[in-house]
Amino acid sequence: MMTNNIFANFSPTDYRYRVADLEQYLSEEACIRYQVLVETALIKMLAKNTICSKKCVNEIEKIVNKIQTKKVYEEKERIGHGIRALVNVIKDEAKDSKPYIHMGATSADIIDTADILRFKDATEKVIIPDILKLEKELIRIAELEKNTIQIGRTHGQHATPVTFGFAIALYVDRLGNRILNIKETCNKLVGMFSGAVGAYNALSLYIKNPDKFETLLLKELGLKPAHISTQVIPPEPITDFVNSIISSFGVLANLADDMRHLQRTEISEVKEPFSNVQVGSSTMPQKQNPEVLESIKSLWKAMMPRMITTYADQISEHQRDLTNSASERYVPEILVTFDHSVRRMTKVMKGLTINRDRMKQNFEMSADKVIAEPLQILLSYYKHPNAHEKVRQLVMKSIKNNASFKDLISQDNEIKSYFNKFTKEQKEISLNPEKYLGLAPQKAKEICNLWKRKFGFKI
Amino acid sequence: MMTNNIFANFSPTDYRYRVADLEQYLSEEACIRYQVLVETALIKMLAKNTICSKKCVNEIEKIVNKIQTKKVYEEKERIGHGIRALVNVIKDEAKDSKPYIHMGATSADIIDTADILRFKDATEKVIIPDILKLEKELIRIAELEKNTIQIGRTHGQHATPVTFGFAIALYVDRLGNRILNIKETCNKLVGMFSGAVGAYNALSLYIKNPDKFETLLLKELGLKPAHISTQVIPPEPITDFVNSIISSFGVLANLADDMRHLQRTEISEVKEPFSNVQVGSSTMPQKQNPEVLESIKSLWKAMMPRMITTYADQISEHQRDLTNSASERYVPEILVTFDHSVRRMTKVMKGLTINRDRMKQNFEMSADKVIAEPLQILLSYYKHPNAHEKVRQLVMKSIKNNASFKDLISQDNEIKSYFNKFTKEQKEISLNPEKYLGLAPQKAKEICNLWKRKFGFKI
Amino acid sequence: MMTNNIFANFSPTDYRYRVADLEQYLSEEACIRYQVLVETALIKMLAKNTICSKKCVNEIEKIVNKIQTKKVYEEKERIGHGIRALVNVIKDEAKDSKPYIHMGATSADIIDTADILRFKDATEKVIIPDILKLEKELIRIAELEKNTIQIGRTHGQHATPVTFGFAIALYVDRLGNRILNIKETCNKLVGMFSGAVGAYNALSLYIKNPDKFETLLLKELGLKPAHISTQVIPPEPITDFVNSIISSFGVLANLADDMRHLQRTEISEVKEPFSNVQVGSSTMPQKQNPEVLESIKSLWKAMMPRMITTYADQISEHQRDLTNSASERYVPEILVTFDHSVRRMTKVMKGLTINRDRMKQNFEMSADKVIAEPLQILLSYYKHPNAHEKVRQLVMKSIKNNASFKDLISQDNEIKSYFNKFTKEQKEISLNPEKYLGLAPQKAKEICNLWKRKFGFKI
Amino acid sequence: MMTNNIFANFSPTDYRYRVADLEQYLSEEACIRYQVLVETALIKMLAKNTICSKKCVNEIEKIVNKIQTKKVYEEKERIGHGIRALVNVIKDEAKDSKPYIHMGATSADIIDTADILRFKDATEKVIIPDILKLEKELIRIAELEKNTIQIGRTHGQHATPVTFGFAIALYVDRLGNRILNIKETCNKLVGMFSGAVGAYNALSLYIKNPDKFETLLLKELGLKPAHISTQVIPPEPITDFVNSIISSFGVLANLADDMRHLQRTEISEVKEPFSNVQVGSSTMPQKQNPEVLESIKSLWKAMMPRMITTYADQISEHQRDLTNSASERYVPEILVTFDHSVRRMTKVMKGLTINRDRMKQNFEMSADKVIAEPLQILLSYYKHPNAHEKVRQLVMKSIKNNASFKDLISQDNEIKSYFNKFTKEQKEISLNPEKYLGLAPQKAKEICNLWKRKFGFKI
Repeated sequence: MMTNNIFANFSPTDYRYRVADLEQYLSEEACIRYQVLVETALIKMLAKNTICSKKCVNEIEKIVNKIQTKKVYEEKERIGHGIRALVNVIKDEAKDSKPYIHMGATSADIIDTADILRFKDATEKVIIPDILKLEKELIRIAELEKNTIQIGRTHGQHATPVTFGFAIALYVDRLGNRILNIKETCNKLVGMFSGAVGAYNALSLYIKNPDKFETLLLKELGLKPAHISTQVIPPEPITDFVNSIISSFGVLANLADDMRHLQRTEISEVKEPFSNVQVGSSTMPQKQNPEVLESIKSLWKAMMPRMITTYADQISEHQRDLTNSASERYVPEILVTFDHSVRRMTKVMKGLTINRDRMKQNFEMSADKVIAEPLQILLSYYKHPNAHEKVRQLVMKSIKNNASFKDLISQDNEIKSYFNKFTKEQKEISLNPEKYLGLAPQKAKEICNLWKRKFGFKI
Repeated sequence: MMTNNIFANFSPTDYRYRVADLEQYLSEEACIRYQVLVETALIKMLAKNTICSKKCVNEIEKIVNKIQTKKVYEEKERIGHGIRALVNVIKDEAKDSKPYIHMGATSADIIDTADILRFKDATEKVIIPDILKLEKELIRIAELEKNTIQIGRTHGQHATPVTFGFAIALYVDRLGNRILNIKETCNKLVGMFSGAVGAYNALSLYIKNPDKFETLLLKELGLKPAHISTQVIPPEPITDFVNSIISSFGVLANLADDMRHLQRTEISEVKEPFSNVQVGSSTMPQKQNPEVLESIKSLWKAMMPRMITTYADQISEHQRDLTNSASERYVPEILVTFDHSVRRMTKVMKGLTINRDRMKQNFEMSADKVIAEPLQILLSYYKHPNAHEKVRQLVMKSIKNNASFKDLISQDNEIKSYFNKFTKEQKEISLNPEKYLGLAPQKAKEICNLWKRKFGFKI
Repeated sequence: MMTNNIFANFSPTDYRYRVADLEQYLSEEACIRYQVLVETALIKMLAKNTICSKKCVNEIEKIVNKIQTKKVYEEKERIGHGIRALVNVIKDEAKDSKPYIHMGATSADIIDTADILRFKDATEKVIIPDILKLEKELIRIAELEKNTIQIGRTHGQHATPVTFGFAIALYVDRLGNRILNIKETCNKLVGMFSGAVGAYNALSLYIKNPDKFETLLLKELGLKPAHISTQVIPPEPITDFVNSIISSFGVLANLADDMRHLQRTEISEVKEPFSNVQVGSSTMPQKQNPEVLESIKSLWKAMMPRMITTYADQISEHQRDLTNSASERYVPEILVTFDHSVRRMTKVMKGLTINRDRMKQNFEMSADKVIAEPLQILLSYYKHPNAHEKVRQLVMKSIKNNASFKDLISQDNEIKSYFNKFTKEQKEISLNPEKYLGLAPQKAKEICNLWKRKFGFKI
Repeated sequence: MMTNNIFANFSPTDYRYRVADLEQYLSEEACIRYQVLVETALIKMLAKNTICSKKCVNEIEKIVNKIQTKKVYEEKERIGHGIRALVNVIKDEAKDSKPYIHMGATSADIIDTADILRFKDATEKVIIPDILKLEKELIRIAELEKNTIQIGRTHGQHATPVTFGFAIALYVDRLGNRILNIKETCNKLVGMFSGAVGAYNALSLYIKNPDKFETLLLKELGLKPAHISTQVIPPEPITDFVNSIISSFGVLANLADDMRHLQRTEISEVKEPFSNVQVGSSTMPQKQNPEVLESIKSLWKAMMPRMITTYADQISEHQRDLTNSASERYVPEILVTFDHSVRRMTKVMKGLTINRDRMKQNFEMSADKVIAEPLQILLSYYKHPNAHEKVRQLVMKSIKNNASFKDLISQDNEIKSYFNKFTKEQKEISLNPEKYLGLAPQKAKEICNLWKRKFGFKI
């Protein structure tokens, strides 16, 4: 079981959606390495408290660099306990520090704290930088296309115009909001070093202030302690963290859906990048599919339901049961596939073909009817008592008879009487729907500025 | 379909788990009332901007008090549109304000803002006060029982001792943390008044600064606006809010599980209140079941998966599709059943019978073996190179032979040589496991003080 | 709490998505009525076994017609037990049968069996007939439109042609398959009458063959018994039944998505029925939205995740815990909203406007490129070693240069040399993409016939 | 990215819960091999139809044995299409068969059919045999312990007695039922060979009866075709199959919960096997935890929510979108971890320590109160009008006063008057609760026989 090639794997996270940069945090090898880090911090603290000598620190630091995951697993195979196996493997190499390895700790002190550490590192060092790159790309597009007219679509039906930059600015904002949420929930992740049942029973045997000892040990690792814990850290900070990732994935999935719908043959307003040698279909040579966007949506479908596991893992009997152990080992899959999707989305947005002409043409399809809204608003403004119904009947007539709505308006005396009261600007908007943009361009700009400021982007 | 008795209902939320206090926020009647509130705020703003007269404000305020949900639904039946139906019903009664009702708004401006408002009100006025009552109850128990010894249980197996107050303090902390989370996510809920596609197209026709208009209108209602929106508010604030409720429900479910397991016949450390006339089983007269606790866990199972719906509702095509409309109508069910569960949990904790004698007896079952941990720690402390394995073999022997572990220790020369080095206090703890409590009592106290301070409790 | 109007309800199932025809099976009132039915069956069996007199049967039959849900709930309020409350209410009216009411039964015998019965009745008497109506409607369209050319779409991109009837026939088949699945899983629902822990302890006190007694009692109700049970029926038959409903809902959701995407302004191949007075938007008078289709998708999003609850309810400690009790009370919501959606979908399909001209036009958009597939296949057939790549390069050139693919082909000597080998029919299809329909019309017909036969439809 | 060790993996399925026997079906390498199998079947069918020569069959059979997954992935990297990459790699080695590779197929014909094949093979060749081993083990225990008295537990409270064999027989039945369900749903999995949009467009170019061609091709592979398909197979057969696996996992999870609760220190009726060198806790040497049982429950929590993905994958736009592609790649994880759990559960049950003495002792705890049920039943039988309430008051008094219930009964004149009417056997059961077993032993035996017969077990 110790040799392998990635194609002997079962999980697509391991053969297809790998993010090499995350291996050092989220692989099983990394997991063991982080656990070693926590065990080392314990020895350092014991030395600081003169419980063991400083030589022990040197010794342990040499040993831990040589720990092989394979060996730990072999020992685990023998004694059926993962952390004890790790401790034994370290002890085998130790001399002076032998008695002190893991002294006063329970397995979960090591496992939970190591997991928190590596989740934080993966998030801060890889995932957030990756999302920020996507955010920048979105800002670039939103600014560039802030004046590009596009028909707004609600219920899949043409509505009132926006600009493409405005539409993208929405994602700038939603993604920006999620980045902040990931940062916040990540900062609230806490560690623990409180022993078998959380009451510092063991540490109390030889340390005066075991809770202070915990605080300093965790500080060494860059973490704060939970207020109180059982054998394990209270689960809610992890719950919030996973929620922040899953809900960020949802923003990606929505963007992916929007972009691939805009790529529908009949709409054709954007196009996912497609290389010269790329094949779209094994049988239809003409096909160019939004397959990256589809893949992002699909991975969201695979990962999103796993929030249920996270909620179920909130429940642990008394000072803990172990039914959250195997399940929590799947959290890295969520982080990896999310980051993989962020990276692919960034590439798609970077290479996105934006067809402004087609956006204009699609808008033109509905230009005649679009003015129904400004018309009914202005009729109301000039005190028409039932403007919506008046205009609705007229526009429905135009749809039914396939007639120009503008013409019908111009022939309607009642409307004419109101129209005459319109200001010059109001008249112009009513007759030129492409001017009926509201604050779309301005808002696009403002949102980009807001998030550039928040993230210190200089673009 | 307009007359009803609650037992003609399909959803248990409506016949069994109702919280009458929440009807004014979360029933359909309340929903319409909040929508009316938003429509009224619009008229007020129009008057402030001298677009309509102040008379309109008076008029609308009189009308809206008389709106009947039934009438709105009848009009909806006719025209197939909920908000337009509401507008028509208001208009029917209006004179001066007729043209201005709903002017510049899209349905979602009203619906989404009204929902945010009523969710906030329900949370701030009923749900949070209810959880605070539960929190107080937990604090009361944690303080009272901070010195009550209880065997710690991990994997369902006796571990190292804690106190019952310490065990409850864990829930004081987790619930306290969730209350803060609900408050935070609730405060981040934002409103919207940006029109059909979010670009203020309609408002721009007659207002200079439509985004400022939005801000002031929402301020009137006690809300802040979204940075940017489509036809609907960006979904993530709602996502986080629902996560805060669902994860709070998880804390309740865990507490319920713990309490009912402690009520198992063989454990019998606590008992759910049980009245004199109460029947536990329709066939076994002797039964006294933890049925309220079971019901809380069961409602958690019913509500928790609905987070999936919330995540799915993050995805809406382009400027919105309507596939989040029916699904979001089920959010009130989550809030109601959660609050119902909080209230029932408070009653259970208030009336909880705590059997200190039984806690002591259960602890005694394992007292002999419990000292294995302090022993191996202290052996390590005094430089035994393989203390855990040494003690493990001895304690397993004692288990296998059903012999006293203390006796085995006292007969073991190797251990004796170490034992002699122990301090007086260390010796005492090793021999008197009921003293092996670590910081349990102290932590229980500290956690209670922490949250009493945070919530300003004077108890 | 005993008076109500439907708008005081919290769940939209109760104020908005009600199916009146299902009240007699799935409301709480119906629930009590079915429980009474099971209690009555017990008395009948006791009389048949001469344990009580036949007078008791008459007596009970008179009583049960008068049972008021309200009274049962009042008694439940007092004694805290639902079934015992029901028993007490019946007993209050009884004389001779007083001792025999509920004798030998446990609450779950009554509750579980009653639930199975009413779920079966609701399914067989309302839900399946409703789906069959939808199935008929789909068959009607599939047959009518079996020759209507439509461009096939994969990845949202034009692919190879089908017919609209063929596309609908797919749903005829999927829905047909689900109807059979619902029937099968419904038929496998079993009842139970085995007492407090499933071992017939109580019945054994006065009946020789208590398992035979159970079988006959259930036969009276039209059910078969579980092979073995605890206090409750083994959960898997219910699991499979709910899966059959949820997966049927998925077919509806997919059909709804397809139809609403075909209604997109740019595609416009179909249109949901829209009445003359109907309002599509409260601000944009021109809007005609696929709101029923959206609502169906949305209800699917609300109900689908509840399968998680069903899976969680598979787990019950030892002879049962009660944590599946509150949660299972929400199953009727699933059934009601599913049936509601089936009915609305039937109306949409009945009134669907099908725009054959637009289907033709949309097909024409891609007619030139569509022949890439038949061309590469036939080149292969005539031994071209790399037909796909050859054609791919040519068609990509045509896309890039916005040139006619047909023209490029006719100018390509290599292709010409193969083309000359084509049969007449092969040439015709290659040049007339509208003939490249494969078996689409034939399959549409066959599938319709298959399911008409299976369901005995005469249409 | 092409070299690896299993500890560089992210998913625990790949480093910790691997089932080596499933690699040949469910790894990515296996996936490619099965796809090759389908491509080969196509060439065979073309040869049978004399479209290509028999030499092609020989040629392809030689080639496919040498296909390297690595090469396919490298080509995929270049052209961005998985199946086309595979086709290219095969073609590179081919001469005569070059034109015919993949001719008339679309990628999904290959992918979907290959997946169905390998899921079936994995299920039939590994998973079902593994579950049958567990079933046998459960039958062994149920038969052996059919007379071992155990207190029945409902709501975690002592109820009415059963036997341990009876309790296990429940799982024999539930698991047996699931095995049948897995077999059924597995048999209903169908393949497909109908081209780009499901209408056999391509095949029709050179084959008379393309649907017959599909049927024969699939027969060659041991499959039946879908009635009709789009580009992909209708999803419902897979939905039902995954439901059968997930719901089987639920049965395992329930059994795991039951066994670990019975292992609670205070109950101690069973014990998971524990080796001599095994370590239960890294700090508490005395611990022996039910960690395998906990792990099974935990994996259920990780996998069960993935049903949501399966339901979401039912929805695919028009002739298909690709958003089910990445997500479906995670189905093997479900199968692997389920099989892993089945195997571990079998080991646990095989080595389970059953403590009959402790079962008896636990039963004795409640023996005095247990007779409350038979007493109230028999009082009713002898026409006491309110037996339950009469007995309830008496037994509550005994609980409150910590007095013997038997004594209270014997002192109660009213009860005495009824008791005198009891038959000898009825008296005996009332006074000797260990005889109040109902049909428990008999049912245990019957259920075992039923499933031994169904599965042809000779044990």
